[in-house]
Amino acid sequence: MNEFALIEQLTRSWPRPASVVAGVGEDCAVLDLGIADQFVLFKTDAVVEGVHFTAEAAPAQIGHKALARCLSDIAAMAGTPTHALITLGLPRDHDPAVLEEIYRGIGALADRYQVALVGGETTTNPDRLLLSVSVLGTVPKDRCLLRSGAQPGDALFVTGELGGALAGKHLEFQPRLREAQWLAAHFPVHSMIDLSDGLAGDLRHVLKASGVGAELHGPSIPISRAARRRGPGQSSGRTPFVAALTDGEDFELLFSVSSRAAVSLLDQWNRQFPELRLTCVGKITRTPDLTLRDKTGCKPLVLHGYLHFS
Amino acid sequence: MNEFALIEQLTRSWPRPASVVAGVGEDCAVLDLGIADQFVLFKTDAVVEGVHFTAEAAPAQIGHKALARCLSDIAAMAGTPTHALITLGLPRDHDPAVLEEIYRGIGALADRYQVALVGGETTTNPDRLLLSVSVLGTVPKDRCLLRSGAQPGDALFVTGELGGALAGKHLEFQPRLREAQWLAAHFPVHSMIDLSDGLAGDLRHVLKASGVGAELHGPSIPISRAARRRGPGQSSGRTPFVAALTDGEDFELLFSVSSRAAVSLLDQWNRQFPELRLTCVGKITRTPDLTLRDKTGCKPLVLHGYLHFS
Repeated sequence: MNEFALIEQLTRSWPRPASVVAGVGEDCAVLDLGIADQFVLFKTDAVVEGVHFTAEAAPAQIGHKALARCLSDIAAMAGTPTHALITLGLPRDHDPAVLEEIYRGIGALADRYQVALVGGETTTNPDRLLLSVSVLGTVPKDRCLLRSGAQPGDALFVTGELGGALAGKHLEFQPRLREAQWLAAHFPVHSMIDLSDGLAGDLRHVLKASGVGAELHGPSIPISRAARRRGPGQSSGRTPFVAALTDGEDFELLFSVSSRAAVSLLDQWNRQFPELRLTCVGKITRTPDLTLRDKTGCKPLVLHGYLHFS
Repeated sequence: MNEFALIEQLTRSWPRPASVVAGVGEDCAVLDLGIADQFVLFKTDAVVEGVHFTAEAAPAQIGHKALARCLSDIAAMAGTPTHALITLGLPRDHDPAVLEEIYRGIGALADRYQVALVGGETTTNPDRLLLSVSVLGTVPKDRCLLRSGAQPGDALFVTGELGGALAGKHLEFQPRLREAQWLAAHFPVHSMIDLSDGLAGDLRHVLKASGVGAELHGPSIPISRAARRRGPGQSSGRTPFVAALTDGEDFELLFSVSSRAAVSLLDQWNRQFPELRLTCVGKITRTPDLTLRDKTGCKPLVLHGYLHFS
């Protein structure tokens, strides 16, 4: 059993009181705390030296990544992040100047998206640096997007270009907060997720949560320059196309929208966000399979995204 | 510069928007999210193998401790915990049965205090087990207790008995949630903190935040049986009295209350919580010094609590 399945099994029996709109299985917990018209979003995430970044990464980028990952999860619900807490696990031989740089990276990103940093703590994690970030956010109740809302016939879209993020993007990506909020405000978006484990893996999360299937259009998948370049972090022997489908840490948005809105969406997107590519990569189907269509026909997609501990 | 001072320096310049009632420097962040009559409390904390527990600790107790530490911080504000997220950093060779036991310990404590577990995640922390817990809570606006409210003349109280927690209590303590809520509802409590770093150290946090001093009455300090026994986890050469003043992880409440209420408080406490000792250990003074009075007179207290990284 992989880690996902084990955690799912262990957390399935957790009671869910009325205040919990969505919990385990979504990008963020969605809570109704009694604020008029708003849900509260609650998310925590950790990055670990040697797992999510190397010892060579710039400390400010490590801080940026730690906070940006949580903000990307807030974006996936079309929310607005409001407050964050930072827990640092510091190796015994840490350098105070490194701590300062980490906080500088966190502070710059928090400032950009007006996130209030409301606590910072340290503990010892003797062998390696670890950052655990907790974020609160809000989202209008009628605009909150879940993984579970995909509907047969929806068009599937992805922002940006995919694959090869370990060559650099994973340390400097911008969470797609404004894009997600704009989408939820103007279009009949039915489901959304941020791509952390790779398109093939994360799309499966959406399909499972929604009880639907999908057909990806192979030639449409936007492949990043880093994936084409077969840069560092990419296993040898994999094609750029496979990298785009399975590499983790893209932190782009994958969402499904009523197909009647697809053309208008593309048109308005290109005027609103001219510097960020938006691509229709397929459609949601009623049969619960994930298939890939290309010039040779339509076949089941057997690739998975990055699986922790698998 | 010790870690506390460094973090304080690095976080001092963080902007504080109007929604932040209290942030860095309190047990929890206190947020006004627009809920009528209620503040939201927000706290995160981590425990690390070899730092906060040994590899021999029972996994269910590790889970208990990780959540209980956060709940103790909610108690320190007289709040009620509502929702929690769990991030596990697992060593590469972890045993799924251990994971199950950790979640069992977390689940039992969450159940006892009606805390909804709304997300569980794992990452790899290759060399040792780490748990990072984030908790949300609420507190009526007129009952939220801060470190910064101590007033000259207040009587200083502490719950339970102090010292020697590493002999066992640190893995099985109960957060003083009901006691703190009862205190805030019935008495003019001016300041409160939970004892994580030892009485001498945590009292200094209160004094600094409140701009006051205190006089401790040495013979009144309640010394635990574990501290008298000089059990495991206690440095040799320290007296039980010094252990009670400086050992960490007691997770009892230290609070100051208007002196006119002190006698009535003790009387009603003993009827309300007959199994938990409550002790008046001194008073808040106008001069910003911490002194210790015993039969030989009154002298400055030079002992400190546990200092991380010092």
